[in-house]
Amino acid sequence: MSHTHTLYQHGTLALLVPGLLDGTITMKELLEHGDTGIGTGEGLDGELIILDGVPYQVDSDGNVNVVKDDFTLPFANSHFAKYRHLTDVNELSQAELDKKILSMTSNNTFFSIMMHGTFTNIRTRAVKKSHKPYATLGETAQNQSIFLKESVEGTLLSYYSPTIFDGAAVGGFHHHFISDKRDFGGHVLGFGGATGDVEIQHFSTLEQHLPVHNKDYMNYDFSDWDILSEIHDAEN
Amino acid sequence: MSHTHTLYQHGTLALLVPGLLDGTITMKELLEHGDTGIGTGEGLDGELIILDGVPYQVDSDGNVNVVKDDFTLPFANSHFAKYRHLTDVNELSQAELDKKILSMTSNNTFFSIMMHGTFTNIRTRAVKKSHKPYATLGETAQNQSIFLKESVEGTLLSYYSPTIFDGAAVGGFHHHFISDKRDFGGHVLGFGGATGDVEIQHFSTLEQHLPVHNKDYMNYDFSDWDILSEIHDAEN
Repeated sequence: MSHTHTLYQHGTLALLVPGLLDGTITMKELLEHGDTGIGTGEGLDGELIILDGVPYQVDSDGNVNVVKDDFTLPFANSHFAKYRHLTDVNELSQAELDKKILSMTSNNTFFSIMMHGTFTNIRTRAVKKSHKPYATLGETAQNQSIFLKESVEGTLLSYYSPTIFDGAAVGGFHHHFISDKRDFGGHVLGFGGATGDVEIQHFSTLEQHLPVHNKDYMNYDFSDWDILSEIHDAEN
Repeated sequence: MSHTHTLYQHGTLALLVPGLLDGTITMKELLEHGDTGIGTGEGLDGELIILDGVPYQVDSDGNVNVVKDDFTLPFANSHFAKYRHLTDVNELSQAELDKKILSMTSNNTFFSIMMHGTFTNIRTRAVKKSHKPYATLGETAQNQSIFLKESVEGTLLSYYSPTIFDGAAVGGFHHHFISDKRDFGGHVLGFGGATGDVEIQHFSTLEQHLPVHNKDYMNYDFSDWDILSEIHDAEN
């Protein structure tokens, strides 16, 4: 089925920088493009992770909520899962895991990683919702919650985008996590050791959808910003 | 019909930089994604312009050829035409035309311009095919042919990509031209005056397809290059 070769993305990473944070796609619409995905809610309302068609939100209090069909998002991606086994890993840090994956596959196309296992000293963050006028990405990054677990069983869902797409997508790896108990997760800042089964799914196509019906986005003058610098400051 | 809201692109501008110039899509496949488009052939074999489903190639001798279904391309885009009238212009230079169009529409989404009219002092170029090992984009740019017409009737076909997609696509405007007599055309370097009817078609979606079955592309280490600098040197 060729649609398992397509990664769907709504919005761009760039539009988060000046705070163009209206929700411009509903979760229902996003799920039409996949049963697996990540994203953030309107106003940067938490960190989303979709597994088996169920959209979980980790909010800035650390709560895990299943969101409804009418939940809206400014930036998200989804795809239909068809992973294959890549490797088993034992006690790899995030940097070691990223490096091992890239030693086994090309970094010139989009792919997703799904890893179920045990994660030690894992740090996640969840951004806090702002209301109009929305905060900029830099302001939001200063107002995020950080969560830590010494050891947790769960699922790491990652997307890799070739560097040339940095700014449109998140260049390099973008990792989200959710625990098996659905009581911990978010955007992954790092982990000390990951042990488990690493699966991979490659994409030949990025279906990049833009919020063309959102006037704030369409009328915005991005030339006022050094978008890539702002992104790298906020995401790292 | 929603497929008129989609711009299909095969390959990236970036892969031209180190000379990853294998033809990785056939014209037949490209035409399945549109009846209108632009591109270049394997080895940077001329400048392509597709109008009403007919693929014309301007080669480095300035000849205009209709290419066959099995002609292959490393980088191309196509879409199904559904333009609407934007404005009429009189004796505008390329810079003036670009500016006028951007004053009338958002620069935050992909769009295409189709303009039929009279063009004065129009300069075009066509790149010259190289064979494996292919030339780099910088080498090819030094080996291009330049053509000039004082006055010619023809069609300007342009694509605009938001700046954040620079490197994947051609950020900003990318203009190709072909004369009504099908005896002149290429990648547009500039014109003194354009007079005629300007039509526009907006896209909400970029369908970005990558040559994932081409080993030279998949295994290439782009980190050796400052891709954006190379592109800006060669394209301007």
